[in-house]
Amino acid sequence: MWDKNQIAAAGIKGDWVLALPDFVKYGDLDAYNHVNNKVYHAWFENLRVIYFREMGLVGGMDAPYKTVVRSASIDFYAQMIMGEDYVTTMRCSRVGNSSFDLDYAVYVDGEMRTTGKTLMVLVDITATKSVRIPEDIREILITRDGANS
Amino acid sequence: MWDKNQIAAAGIKGDWVLALPDFVKYGDLDAYNHVNNKVYHAWFENLRVIYFREMGLVGGMDAPYKTVVRSASIDFYAQMIMGEDYVTTMRCSRVGNSSFDLDYAVYVDGEMRTTGKTLMVLVDITATKSVRIPEDIREILITRDGANS
Amino acid sequence: MWDKNQIAAAGIKGDWVLALPDFVKYGDLDAYNHVNNKVYHAWFENLRVIYFREMGLVGGMDAPYKTVVRSASIDFYAQMIMGEDYVTTMRCSRVGNSSFDLDYAVYVDGEMRTTGKTLMVLVDITATKSVRIPEDIREILITRDGANS
Amino acid sequence: MWDKNQIAAAGIKGDWVLALPDFVKYGDLDAYNHVNNKVYHAWFENLRVIYFREMGLVGGMDAPYKTVVRSASIDFYAQMIMGEDYVTTMRCSRVGNSSFDLDYAVYVDGEMRTTGKTLMVLVDITATKSVRIPEDIREILITRDGANS
Repeated sequence: MWDKNQIAAAGIKGDWVLALPDFVKYGDLDAYNHVNNKVYHAWFENLRVIYFREMGLVGGMDAPYKTVVRSASIDFYAQMIMGEDYVTTMRCSRVGNSSFDLDYAVYVDGEMRTTGKTLMVLVDITATKSVRIPEDIREILITRDGANS
Repeated sequence: MWDKNQIAAAGIKGDWVLALPDFVKYGDLDAYNHVNNKVYHAWFENLRVIYFREMGLVGGMDAPYKTVVRSASIDFYAQMIMGEDYVTTMRCSRVGNSSFDLDYAVYVDGEMRTTGKTLMVLVDITATKSVRIPEDIREILITRDGANS
Repeated sequence: MWDKNQIAAAGIKGDWVLALPDFVKYGDLDAYNHVNNKVYHAWFENLRVIYFREMGLVGGMDAPYKTVVRSASIDFYAQMIMGEDYVTTMRCSRVGNSSFDLDYAVYVDGEMRTTGKTLMVLVDITATKSVRIPEDIREILITRDGANS
Repeated sequence: MWDKNQIAAAGIKGDWVLALPDFVKYGDLDAYNHVNNKVYHAWFENLRVIYFREMGLVGGMDAPYKTVVRSASIDFYAQMIMGEDYVTTMRCSRVGNSSFDLDYAVYVDGEMRTTGKTLMVLVDITATKSVRIPEDIREILITRDGANS
């Protein structure tokens, strides 16, 4: 896992706060012999869960709330092939009362290949109503991630 | 595979032209015990490839062009659980010179759970430049799918 | 889902008790353009979970036991490609005190493409010790599945 | 990627020749909140493809042969959970005329969690007949991997 400093040291621009370096494996490929589109969603999701755990936003059975994805979008700029080293990055770009936006990107040699965004909502544990984002979490998202509020 | 008539007979509204009925399997679930977000992308992709094959848009090694996904988005309205019967539907909603929009949805008992959209571009086989959509394909997308042009 | 009679009617030989017909989708393929090896494990697992649910062997949070896979093996006889119709079949071939063997196969046009076997163990809910298979379950496995005991 | 020396330095016993360190991600989990059984197959496959590429056994379109999996087995000793650091290891344990055995394992803190084995066959590019393993490859498998012949 990389923090802001390591991300900058790798020549990756932007306000990313968390990143995971890895390389393309055989299982990421599809019949076109390139990384399958849905694999990028998996990369973003894997990083998002780590991001939440580090902030204490993914609790145990007794957590008062959980996060859900309301919508997700991805833009593809260039394909990726077997063995390529890449870095998946993320940050929170907007925080509202109970919703927030997470931005993602995949970089190869400092060049952006794919970007993504998910609209997240904090809900109570039965997912029946939205929950106000706790102040300490909001503070982190604004201060550390530079999220608009 | 369902055509327009079978889709309507199942009580599913909208201008969908192709649908695939199935049910949620164990492998679709994640640690939250519901269908994982990226699985919907897999369902849409599986249906899209069938849709293209039926129109002759996915060729062999000697095809003059191929389709690529430029962007993809999904909206989630309600979660899905093990064993639920569902129907994945799709149609083309817009056709341009070389790009077109594909719309998708997942229905359970006639109720929409998830919708998706992908912006597709027809490119030459080396993916270096876009290719004009053949007239016969455009005609199908406008006439059968009701795509805006 | 097919029962014994439907399996026999489809020209599939053997003592299979449960089967699931489906067809190969794009997401099942890998870079060799054929069904990826690990996808067969997914097919077997998906059917196994249904098989257990029908017997009441997969309980809720308050179930006194659960099943675990101790070992799994697969033999591959012929590859499978996009669009092929296939049937995944299964049965229990052996039942011991707390362990049992499940057999699986994939058929295309009555011809076996792949076979699998998993050694299952019934364990208490904390997975710390094995549990004796309940008599009513054992009876089903011997009578219906023809399992050796 | 780790070689023999790095594997030994990590306190992992055995004659492994190649290893890949990683950690459990959200996408590896299933509804039981542990690493899904078929994910181990993915880990082994991902490492095997790298192993073949390093030996020149996976060629391009003009390669005279390819490798196929005839059978695969896995033994599970202990489950794995989110975030655990692990190492996947492999080696060739037997080489015949056209077939060979590959062994795999997954270690956490030097302790074996899962082992696997695949029976591989070298076949001509149309997969219609087996091909004798080239002498230079056989030599590597015997000398470096300690494969029985």
